Amino acid sequence: MTQHADIGLIGLAVMGRNLVLNMADHGFTVAVYNRSPERTAEFLSGEASEAPIIGTRSLEDLVDALERPRVVMLMIKAGQPVDDQIDALLPLLERGDIVVDGGNSRFTDTERRTGRLAEFGIQFIGMGISGGEDGARFGPSIMPGGNIVAWPQVESIFRSIAAEADGEPCCEWVGPGGAGHYVKMVHNGIEYGDMQVIAEAYDLMRRGLGLTPAEMRPIFTRWNQGRLDSFLIDITRDIMGVLDTDGAPLLDHVLDAAGQKGTGKWTVVASMDQAMPTTLVSEAVYARIVSALVDERTTAAQVLTGPTGAIQDAPDDVVADLEDALYASKIVSYAQGFMLFEAASEEYGWNLDPGTIASLWRAGCIIRSRFLGDITAAYRSNLELSNLLLDGFFRDAVVAAEPGWRRTVARAVTAGIPVPAYSSALAFYDAYRSARLPANLIQAQRDSFGAHTYERTDEPRGRFLHSDWSPE
Amino acid sequence: MTQHADIGLIGLAVMGRNLVLNMADHGFTVAVYNRSPERTAEFLSGEASEAPIIGTRSLEDLVDALERPRVVMLMIKAGQPVDDQIDALLPLLERGDIVVDGGNSRFTDTERRTGRLAEFGIQFIGMGISGGEDGARFGPSIMPGGNIVAWPQVESIFRSIAAEADGEPCCEWVGPGGAGHYVKMVHNGIEYGDMQVIAEAYDLMRRGLGLTPAEMRPIFTRWNQGRLDSFLIDITRDIMGVLDTDGAPLLDHVLDAAGQKGTGKWTVVASMDQAMPTTLVSEAVYARIVSALVDERTTAAQVLTGPTGAIQDAPDDVVADLEDALYASKIVSYAQGFMLFEAASEEYGWNLDPGTIASLWRAGCIIRSRFLGDITAAYRSNLELSNLLLDGFFRDAVVAAEPGWRRTVARAVTAGIPVPAYSSALAFYDAYRSARLPANLIQAQRDSFGAHTYERTDEPRGRFLHSDWSPE
Repeated sequence: MTQHADIGLIGLAVMGRNLVLNMADHGFTVAVYNRSPERTAEFLSGEASEAPIIGTRSLEDLVDALERPRVVMLMIKAGQPVDDQIDALLPLLERGDIVVDGGNSRFTDTERRTGRLAEFGIQFIGMGISGGEDGARFGPSIMPGGNIVAWPQVESIFRSIAAEADGEPCCEWVGPGGAGHYVKMVHNGIEYGDMQVIAEAYDLMRRGLGLTPAEMRPIFTRWNQGRLDSFLIDITRDIMGVLDTDGAPLLDHVLDAAGQKGTGKWTVVASMDQAMPTTLVSEAVYARIVSALVDERTTAAQVLTGPTGAIQDAPDDVVADLEDALYASKIVSYAQGFMLFEAASEEYGWNLDPGTIASLWRAGCIIRSRFLGDITAAYRSNLELSNLLLDGFFRDAVVAAEPGWRRTVARAVTAGIPVPAYSSALAFYDAYRSARLPANLIQAQRDSFGAHTYERTDEPRGRFLHSDWSPE
Repeated sequence: MTQHADIGLIGLAVMGRNLVLNMADHGFTVAVYNRSPERTAEFLSGEASEAPIIGTRSLEDLVDALERPRVVMLMIKAGQPVDDQIDALLPLLERGDIVVDGGNSRFTDTERRTGRLAEFGIQFIGMGISGGEDGARFGPSIMPGGNIVAWPQVESIFRSIAAEADGEPCCEWVGPGGAGHYVKMVHNGIEYGDMQVIAEAYDLMRRGLGLTPAEMRPIFTRWNQGRLDSFLIDITRDIMGVLDTDGAPLLDHVLDAAGQKGTGKWTVVASMDQAMPTTLVSEAVYARIVSALVDERTTAAQVLTGPTGAIQDAPDDVVADLEDALYASKIVSYAQGFMLFEAASEEYGWNLDPGTIASLWRAGCIIRSRFLGDITAAYRSNLELSNLLLDGFFRDAVVAAEPGWRRTVARAVTAGIPVPAYSSALAFYDAYRSARLPANLIQAQRDSFGAHTYERTDEPRGRFLHSDWSPE
């Protein structure tokens, strides 16, 4: 029996299954393999029963079912399992075959695997995929990187299953090596930030103004019709309307201990490696960490005093300012994320294009938004744009939002409600627009205690001096 | 010729030379070796000419000069050079000999080296040393960890050369493996934070109140006589009094681009690994990063508008509040650092004692202060203290400082002066004392788009639920 599948996919968890169904919808024949054959059988007799999908019971069968050059996609747990699966596949593949890793792999692993497989003549693609289950089924955002030679051979599959924005598929080659997974990592870091800025708005309305979820729902509805129009605001509005069996808002019964899976943390580590200030993502990751300390917080709440959170200003003014704070903080967070891309691109020689990255995130993924269309436009209209904050549209936007943003932070600080994302974004904004920061004192201190030397404002850069810092 | 040195030291840069002189002052005979023999000769004929110091021209000579079991201390550049030096030493050493690494090694390297050398029967000590050149010469803070079997054989040397606080040497065994270098790493991270909180005070006085260094000098003098009494405030006061050749304050001519050497960044990465919120250190590292973007800031300053920094409140009130802000932020930063120790101790099985760590930092090191005496007392008087903020002394201190701290952040935010350390510390304080945070919304969002599940407030922990988040 000769079979001619266009692609083979390993790993039939929900993301893998939905990608297979999505490919089948677009006319591709997919061969599938799963470690436990029961899941394969279940899939074939269930969801996939009508689709041109070939079940296989071994890696050999999977590979035999594929057209040459063979394309094998992994949708399995990131980390060691990916290396193990590659090891198992290698003896079955031949030069020119293609392996695609669609999991949430760490970009350094993808760098390594791309190089290793190239030694065997196997082309590797590390592919970031965002959009959750629904995205995988009906159109995710796809961020491929790795061995570019492989791309023309598989792009028709992935571009056809991706989400579309303004008529373009949200799937475009990102760069060599681990570039695709790096972009996906930063996407996830930014996602942490986007969720935190919404959570802070919710907290100020809840604790500060005493609004109920039902009262917040129309506010999120309105926000979702303007500049904040996005998937995350959309689901937040829906969440506000969900009732528990007792008729109370379900949200009120959800424990305030946020989980995380590591990509936010990875983004912070990457920002440290590149010396780029993604302060908002960092504060968002820490905010989840603090939230998880439920017992400690319960104890501390009885001991550490301060304002109770109540805000006395007119609620309409507070909410209007909040929208500004959320929007301006988001602008800062994306500006920081794109600063990180620029540094990483330089460091790793990836030649990342910020306009392409922004365009991939316009649809399909968790952070999709009108906002990302604006960022795409900013980078496409000015190929030399050095920082998103200096683009005309975003400069005007942040300057217009700045007074309300500032009032929001001052109000939260006075009321005792933590707004780590808004306030760190504002501190970054104020530092970034400061021609002169107090780091001269830090340099003087370092030179005083450790002879670390300093530069002068009236000398060329690179001339390092040491002084005796004892006063007369 | 038989020689009987108590210890051999490799690496005669300034820290190494000063440690040798310090040991000689305390009656120990030191054999020294440096890669370039000229430096050894220069040292022996210069600074060391009166001291019981034995110069050697090869590793073999160095090892031959030592009493058994031999003690060899490395004061060389961290990283690969340490591994190379160990490789070169190994064939010359025998079971029971001791290698001490006094450099700024990454704790993971120290973990690895301790294990590797143990296989050869060589006992390894990774030793954090703080205090800069002066500390090394006249009494540093010393944080040893590694193979505890070695400690009784060398502790008399290191305890005698260490700084003293309240009659105790600032040198005490910290824990196994990389514990000593871990404690030194966090020391350095906290040092970044301590410097940043002083820089923010300086900036508010300079930009906010228009004070000159000469006008700030008496303020730092006064602060140094109270609860902020510390080495860093002391040198800051001195820096304010140093004049350039033109009679202007030298500080005004120092470029505001702060350097860093990596241990701050390592602390942030470690905090991510342990999921502990050292937000203040993180913001301090990012603040240095932003300061280094001098050209970008100069451009942005002309484009991004906002308040000019001027503060209209009565200067005496602003300065009084500033002292509160600085002090309270410091308390938070140390509380965060000790939270990190607790988590790392658990993760690596180090059994770190917070009271011991605090006691080591009371003198000799860059962050030495009256404050560290208070922390030592807090942990010594309550061996079960779960968080520094819950200690009676520090709880009262932070609660008393809280109104001025809060006013300072609100004032800076309104004036447009960045205070990332004060504001992130305050956000942490307000989050930590919140029995209920908005992370319930984050969990609802994660469950909505990714079926990540959530826990309920009215169910036991560990029961994970999934809901349909579509409203009626």
